[in-house]
Amino acid sequence: MRARDLAAPYPTVGLSTSALDAARQLADANLPGLIVVDAAGRPSTILPGTQVLRLAVPKYCQENVALARVIDEAHADEFLRDLADRTVAECLPKPERELAIVGPDATVLEIAALMARTRSPLVAVVDGHTTLGAVTLDALLDRMLAS
Amino acid sequence: MRARDLAAPYPTVGLSTSALDAARQLADANLPGLIVVDAAGRPSTILPGTQVLRLAVPKYCQENVALARVIDEAHADEFLRDLADRTVAECLPKPERELAIVGPDATVLEIAALMARTRSPLVAVVDGHTTLGAVTLDALLDRMLAS
Repeated sequence: MRARDLAAPYPTVGLSTSALDAARQLADANLPGLIVVDAAGRPSTILPGTQVLRLAVPKYCQENVALARVIDEAHADEFLRDLADRTVAECLPKPERELAIVGPDATVLEIAALMARTRSPLVAVVDGHTTLGAVTLDALLDRMLAS
Repeated sequence: MRARDLAAPYPTVGLSTSALDAARQLADANLPGLIVVDAAGRPSTILPGTQVLRLAVPKYCQENVALARVIDEAHADEFLRDLADRTVAECLPKPERELAIVGPDATVLEIAALMARTRSPLVAVVDGHTTLGAVTLDALLDRMLAS
């Protein structure tokens, strides 16, 4: 069982997609994260669901518990409205050291280790310039525990 | 909208639960992670789904891509069998600096910031010694995007 056998079709978002649309796509389809592709269709970022929240939460709130606590609901809604005006590219965090991407020959164990290390519940499977699909944490666990 | 309004019942695992049973519970119910409780029923660790994989993948494979690649499927299955003999407590990673736990008065923004910071798609809501339930990433996003 290799990455190519586990890869399933997975929706992608572009760098110019509105951040709000990207967040809605994640929520509506209950996706574990987003694959952000560049103009050539190649994954440029694999964004775990928790990191998509960074698109919606102002930076000064992310690191400061007290500030996040005092902002009331009305203000929180305003931050979300701002999302519609920004693209995914404008909201991306600084690049991760390691991308959650594997080649088609990656083993189950290799994918599991990569997910654990990058804390990404989603790994894109890329063959050269072609994205074959993605392996989700759920799909990987189902396969690992099936035997 | 506060944490107490968002908290939904969520299954827990004990420190003495077999690691294999814990992994199966995650996979079977498609949970985003596990709440590990101590003998008093209080959350001692919130384990994101990706970190549950650390229970199943040998440590020397987690950090070494080349090693994970050369181990064949037959050997990978053996690691999984080992899981049945170990408890959750024996497999836990070293404690995180910050636990994904909030009080009942935490705001939506506060929960979102905590999820982003701890990279946990799951936050336990605890009132004193009582666990009220958990807020998942999906539930939080649905709430944030509903307005």
